[in-house]
Amino acid sequence: MAETEPNAPETLSFDGMPPLRTEDGDLDPLFLDAIRAAIEAADARTVEALAADLHEADVGDIIEALSADERVPFIQLLGEHFDFTALTEVDETVRVQLIEELSPEEVAEGVRELDSDDAVYILEDLDDEDQEEILAKLPAVDRMALRRSLDFPEETAGRRMQTDFIAVPPFWTAGQTIDYLRDQKDLPEEFYEVFVIDPGFRFLGAVALNRLLRAPRPTRMADIMNDERQRVLATDDQEDVARMFERYNLVSAAVVDEAERLVGVITVDDVVDVIQAEAEEDIRALAGVGDEEISDSVFYTLRTRWVWLLFNLLTAFLASSVIGMFSGSISKMVALAVLMPIVASMGGNAATQTMTVTVRALATRDLDAHNVWRIFGRELSVGLLNGGSFALIVGLAAALWFQDPLLGGVIGAAMIVNLLSAATAGILIPLAFERLDIDPAVASGVFVTMVTDVVGFLAFLGLASWILLG
Amino acid sequence: MAETEPNAPETLSFDGMPPLRTEDGDLDPLFLDAIRAAIEAADARTVEALAADLHEADVGDIIEALSADERVPFIQLLGEHFDFTALTEVDETVRVQLIEELSPEEVAEGVRELDSDDAVYILEDLDDEDQEEILAKLPAVDRMALRRSLDFPEETAGRRMQTDFIAVPPFWTAGQTIDYLRDQKDLPEEFYEVFVIDPGFRFLGAVALNRLLRAPRPTRMADIMNDERQRVLATDDQEDVARMFERYNLVSAAVVDEAERLVGVITVDDVVDVIQAEAEEDIRALAGVGDEEISDSVFYTLRTRWVWLLFNLLTAFLASSVIGMFSGSISKMVALAVLMPIVASMGGNAATQTMTVTVRALATRDLDAHNVWRIFGRELSVGLLNGGSFALIVGLAAALWFQDPLLGGVIGAAMIVNLLSAATAGILIPLAFERLDIDPAVASGVFVTMVTDVVGFLAFLGLASWILLG
Repeated sequence: MAETEPNAPETLSFDGMPPLRTEDGDLDPLFLDAIRAAIEAADARTVEALAADLHEADVGDIIEALSADERVPFIQLLGEHFDFTALTEVDETVRVQLIEELSPEEVAEGVRELDSDDAVYILEDLDDEDQEEILAKLPAVDRMALRRSLDFPEETAGRRMQTDFIAVPPFWTAGQTIDYLRDQKDLPEEFYEVFVIDPGFRFLGAVALNRLLRAPRPTRMADIMNDERQRVLATDDQEDVARMFERYNLVSAAVVDEAERLVGVITVDDVVDVIQAEAEEDIRALAGVGDEEISDSVFYTLRTRWVWLLFNLLTAFLASSVIGMFSGSISKMVALAVLMPIVASMGGNAATQTMTVTVRALATRDLDAHNVWRIFGRELSVGLLNGGSFALIVGLAAALWFQDPLLGGVIGAAMIVNLLSAATAGILIPLAFERLDIDPAVASGVFVTMVTDVVGFLAFLGLASWILLG
Repeated sequence: MAETEPNAPETLSFDGMPPLRTEDGDLDPLFLDAIRAAIEAADARTVEALAADLHEADVGDIIEALSADERVPFIQLLGEHFDFTALTEVDETVRVQLIEELSPEEVAEGVRELDSDDAVYILEDLDDEDQEEILAKLPAVDRMALRRSLDFPEETAGRRMQTDFIAVPPFWTAGQTIDYLRDQKDLPEEFYEVFVIDPGFRFLGAVALNRLLRAPRPTRMADIMNDERQRVLATDDQEDVARMFERYNLVSAAVVDEAERLVGVITVDDVVDVIQAEAEEDIRALAGVGDEEISDSVFYTLRTRWVWLLFNLLTAFLASSVIGMFSGSISKMVALAVLMPIVASMGGNAATQTMTVTVRALATRDLDAHNVWRIFGRELSVGLLNGGSFALIVGLAAALWFQDPLLGGVIGAAMIVNLLSAATAGILIPLAFERLDIDPAVASGVFVTMVTDVVGFLAFLGLASWILLG
């Protein structure tokens, strides 16, 4: 590779390999070019030299950066050096496409090496047939563990848990436990707690590793375990689990079934992904872009966005029909048509502000019965004050523009009315959807702007018809 | 308390105390009533019985649920049972207000017990004077550690790090390290790794506790440490730190200064807060609501939102002036005024979709030089296909409504033009801001809707004037 870039030795790392990332953390184009060239030449040795020792997250980023037809050859050239964990780090679209292109044998071989939570993550997006084909090729023990996880509903703790964990009886001592850990060969790769269970496998408590290390060897596990028993039910929603981790600053938590039997452990790295995903979901829902990913196709993207735009179109026609009611006034006074979008647009923006705050406060549980009236009062006050000040600005501007003080007064009054309606709709509509168990992030936007469009046009054109042309 | 709710024994927990939370995780109103009554009666014993043993996160939630004038008495009644860590769990507004109302002695007393990262979190929002007053009351060692953290810029790793950590020389054995941990009384409350340093305090590597536990006692630390040396610079932006934790699934990471000396440790619980906060920031920026919190006052809320609305007003006037150019056409054909908001509104919504996807892809580094042209192509295709299908629907509807096929054709053509401009603006404007090092989430919205409003009105009214009235 040094030959291709003889004049740029500072971009080569000490072993003559191009560096993986540029200074600001993106993948280095030189590195990608080297990988691409090696894939093109089917040069397994170079692909290995470049990528075999990388962290799975970096391998995931490389896969995403490659084009669709380079990905499978890349994985096959890496062969046994390819860690399937990397597939948990790529977009769902890319993952599903890859797994469908690889043979079920190759996938089963790779999945076998994975922690159970990662295996479930990879398998859960496949259709039942593909899933079964791969599961059938796994050893019975692994297959049963994965089936059990996959039987839990989507987005529950049962899907995110790792079924490999360490559990000891309460009468064991710290010393005994440490010796056991030293002798045991088949331990999970990472763990942060040792669980304590009774003979019926029921969860009694957890001992963080730092407490285990600090305890004198003869101390009984029962005496150092944290018996607040912060554990999650396998059927708990992953969002509730994330909120618990966040609230209590947890690093891992036991997962139990309905009989309080320990069935798995959930760790903070999975929770970080959930937190990220849930916040992301709200951003997208608010903008009407569904669950699409940057790697999705034109048609998938189109489908999710089209429905939102269709709803928006219906409300736009509703707003138009309000304008239509006043076409007589408009033909008498064209200034009304020129100014009317200002009132509607300001209302729409103010309502989006209130709605966004409301939706997020509902999502993070910061808004509930204790403070809803106070927040409603605040939003109305903000609406009134914003309405008042913008009424003044817009009123003056309109009066000067069209040399008509009365027109300025009318648009000012309509502005106040619409910003108050924006505050009301921005808070009540998300609250109503929350009550009806409909995700307020998805549903609120269309209705809120419908209210501000209709009220905006109605207030401005109505007042104008009555006062200026009445 | 049983007297106030004699008929609801199922809502009392076994020790006669009302339960803290309802089934869906909100604070129980009965519990809050009990706390409030005890505060009112200045009954320290009951406040203690109710709240002294709670997790700091629950105490934080109680503080937020209380009214402003109950908070200080609550903390004072809890006295030495109040863990100041709870203040890291409340909104900034509430925290600053509380600390200003408590005496500097009380705050210094409370801060002294905290981990350094929590202490910094509480102190950093205070003004310099209040900060100094509290720091002056702390022991010299604590004061110096906190000053050093506070000297790092806001939102850097140095501000989030905990300065208490465990570091051993590379020639120590696993057994020696475990014995040291057992003997040492003054260890951090939680830790997940033991760091290895050279005599100059330079960071060499980290040993996860589970590796330490599994290693045979005579193993040297140098042989089991992870020498990939994933560490962060104290001056690194907290967002970059969060991305690193997320990418490599870290639980804790060493923080070093520019000379590679170990100065602290950053743990995943702080990173979870950062991830949550950064996603939140983008949601709010996109909606123009700044950094406000649900507990902020009317005036703070007003100030942040007002500026955004003012920008929006300027773009609305620009759009109005475009309409003004065609007032002649509108007075000849009022249907144009009735239909024109549809074109602008559809463009605005489509642009917001594209913009949101672009802004988030930039934030999560999923969009870069490798795929920008592909994504641009996809967005244009989506714009064209959405434009085409909505052109058909709107064109037909308009033609039927106003019995004018040509008018339908004009609005359909305008729709295609505007959805293409929406796709272009939605991707190019955030990219341009990113290039200029301006946060695309904050700045894009106003400009993107300005483009779709102006293009929407111009295309529709312009085409109509030319074809229908020309």
